[in-house]
Amino acid sequence: MDHLHTVGFQKLTKVDSALGVLLDALGERAVRLELLPVQRALGRCLGKDVVAGQYLPPVDRSVMDGYAVRVEDVKSASQENPVTLRVIGESRLGVIPRMHVGQGDAVAVATGSLVPPGADAVISVERTTRLSSSSIAVHAPATAGQSIARKGEDVTPGAIVLTKGALLRPQDIGILRALGLGKVCVSRKPRVAVLSTGNELVDSISKRSVAKVVDINRAMLSCMLQELGADAVDLGIVTDREANIKTALKKGLRTCDAVIVSAGSSVGRRDLVPMCVNSLGKPGLLVHGVAMRPAMPIGLAVVNGKPLFSLPGFPVSAFFAFRTFVRPIIAKMLGVKELFESTANAVLSETITGAPGIRTYVRVIIKRNEQGLVAEPLKLQRSSVLMSMVTANGIVVIPEEVTAIERGETVKVILLGQISL
Amino acid sequence: MDHLHTVGFQKLTKVDSALGVLLDALGERAVRLELLPVQRALGRCLGKDVVAGQYLPPVDRSVMDGYAVRVEDVKSASQENPVTLRVIGESRLGVIPRMHVGQGDAVAVATGSLVPPGADAVISVERTTRLSSSSIAVHAPATAGQSIARKGEDVTPGAIVLTKGALLRPQDIGILRALGLGKVCVSRKPRVAVLSTGNELVDSISKRSVAKVVDINRAMLSCMLQELGADAVDLGIVTDREANIKTALKKGLRTCDAVIVSAGSSVGRRDLVPMCVNSLGKPGLLVHGVAMRPAMPIGLAVVNGKPLFSLPGFPVSAFFAFRTFVRPIIAKMLGVKELFESTANAVLSETITGAPGIRTYVRVIIKRNEQGLVAEPLKLQRSSVLMSMVTANGIVVIPEEVTAIERGETVKVILLGQISL
Repeated sequence: MDHLHTVGFQKLTKVDSALGVLLDALGERAVRLELLPVQRALGRCLGKDVVAGQYLPPVDRSVMDGYAVRVEDVKSASQENPVTLRVIGESRLGVIPRMHVGQGDAVAVATGSLVPPGADAVISVERTTRLSSSSIAVHAPATAGQSIARKGEDVTPGAIVLTKGALLRPQDIGILRALGLGKVCVSRKPRVAVLSTGNELVDSISKRSVAKVVDINRAMLSCMLQELGADAVDLGIVTDREANIKTALKKGLRTCDAVIVSAGSSVGRRDLVPMCVNSLGKPGLLVHGVAMRPAMPIGLAVVNGKPLFSLPGFPVSAFFAFRTFVRPIIAKMLGVKELFESTANAVLSETITGAPGIRTYVRVIIKRNEQGLVAEPLKLQRSSVLMSMVTANGIVVIPEEVTAIERGETVKVILLGQISL
Repeated sequence: MDHLHTVGFQKLTKVDSALGVLLDALGERAVRLELLPVQRALGRCLGKDVVAGQYLPPVDRSVMDGYAVRVEDVKSASQENPVTLRVIGESRLGVIPRMHVGQGDAVAVATGSLVPPGADAVISVERTTRLSSSSIAVHAPATAGQSIARKGEDVTPGAIVLTKGALLRPQDIGILRALGLGKVCVSRKPRVAVLSTGNELVDSISKRSVAKVVDINRAMLSCMLQELGADAVDLGIVTDREANIKTALKKGLRTCDAVIVSAGSSVGRRDLVPMCVNSLGKPGLLVHGVAMRPAMPIGLAVVNGKPLFSLPGFPVSAFFAFRTFVRPIIAKMLGVKELFESTANAVLSETITGAPGIRTYVRVIIKRNEQGLVAEPLKLQRSSVLMSMVTANGIVVIPEEVTAIERGETVKVILLGQISL
């Protein structure tokens, strides 16, 4: 086991307590809402329950092509002894019918047209024969309400159609449209400032600068924010100078709802972020050093009521730190009811080990073989190995109280991306 | 069992054959590609394998704050018998070091700085004591390569970093950035025309028009396209007149890569779409009527090499028709390697029934109780009941050769939306 990153921290806070401390410091606050046109609300988080103000359908409607009839009139109808009815008209699509279905009457209807008053069933056209322009033979009886979508069958006034905190799916957009809503109340996308620190960082590589490193955290973290439903605000690369870091963090706190800064988060002499954060306002750094691997050197802060995440510089670490701390906090700001994680159970192909008291995240490749799903831990788990995060399609968590999970055991795998198994 | 929609069709095509016929008629064709800035490519389908042209890291780099040393020099070092080394300089972040580590030398390094030539290990600062401005005591031995990210450890030239057909995740965007790529080749978003037919359809409801129905299919299907990664082109509502339908379909075929038209897809006298489709070009309608429920009255066509989907008008039916036929065809146009479906196993709370030879899609609510995951079929399964699709968070498929799945059996549930279970 590599002791990278355990060194230096005097004490580490457990993952759950660290998140708890941050949530407590932020307290309960109202989710900020906005109105959006329904057709632009796909994937957004619903800000209020949607309560129906009307009946759907608003009137009885036919669900077939056929004839609106009275059950009473066709009760004796059969193939051998059809019943003859008088066709008194047609209920045309989109038009309110003016006729009344009396004894012995039938009205032609199409799928979606209104059932005229007096009728209590629809007979499908296939169960009738046209005798003349004004009469049909009915070959089968009907039950009350047959082939009719009843007024309010789908929705009645006062019904809660969608609940606050739901992420809107295509079918939800559909029902909002059906209710005639033009706009819908959703939570505002939190604006999150993203910056990276480091004298070695550049935004593009050139052959003459092998000593430079292309910053990938801003791009990756911005994409993670986008997937969550937040807006990333790029504050660029900041060199390792206190004044510059402070200026950038202040700008982030002033213009955004949260700040993510990566690198410089540990306890070395070049780790300037924690000190800078503490100079900005209260309560400042709440947690520094989390009992997890990768991503131990995390700083979690609240400054002037806004969360500030000081993430480690290695992209692998930044990735896990984001998943563990940024994600639930942003989800809370959005008011998301359930934080989704796609998982699958798989059998470990190799024993994996953690350290006592540390929550360990193991990158695996999950695949299906003859026996079922197998999770294969990647050989290189170091946080400097970016490809481990690209090659992996799953994560296995070794809890704090467990030091090893044996080969052959079944484990829950958190899936990274859309994986058909 | 309601016989709605079985009537009328002389023969029904099985789901798999219907899809096969459509895929055959479309044939193999090249996925159309475009170049996008890396930072805008999240979620897009990779158009070509990405092959590394360089080493990552490009040089040996330290992964800790400490000293670059020679393993040979510190092999006898211990807490009791530290080894003294001469500090000949510092390898600064972002700068190529000019010094060489000779016998008895050490060079100060930071996480991310280059390891100077001559050194073959990094000792962390915590395992050393500073003796003077130019000397340290080392308290532990080192192994070759310790705390060094070796040149090419992550990526070597020629390595396939990402494969064609992958949907780009945040970490993939990260590695593309790390490779210094400004642009990435992804598949073009197919443009798909979406229109609805029906004299009763309107785009907004008013109290005076209870005979009218708000069209929700265009909005819902457009959202489904968006989720898939295609662009929806709204061609509006078309009245039930042959000339109008033909004009709209022609416009769709002329301006888009595929066309989806909903309603008028069955065999009644108002179902004008199939005839209109057949007048437009060859081969025209390939399948009409699919052995599935909901969504039986589906027409699948190819006109001048482009797919045309004639979906039923009921939103529930249109939804299932889209999932079954539009989704795989669009995924193929995109070149998506794997068509993802989030699933979970659950125990059925009620027996569900299908019809022989028909593939039945049952809307369920999946939830966790003391026993585990339970799938509860919704009472109202009619395709006219829109709320059934909003309330459901899962689908259970009853295959053609099965007529019932008993209460208590474990079934695979396809999850609708992001559901934490």
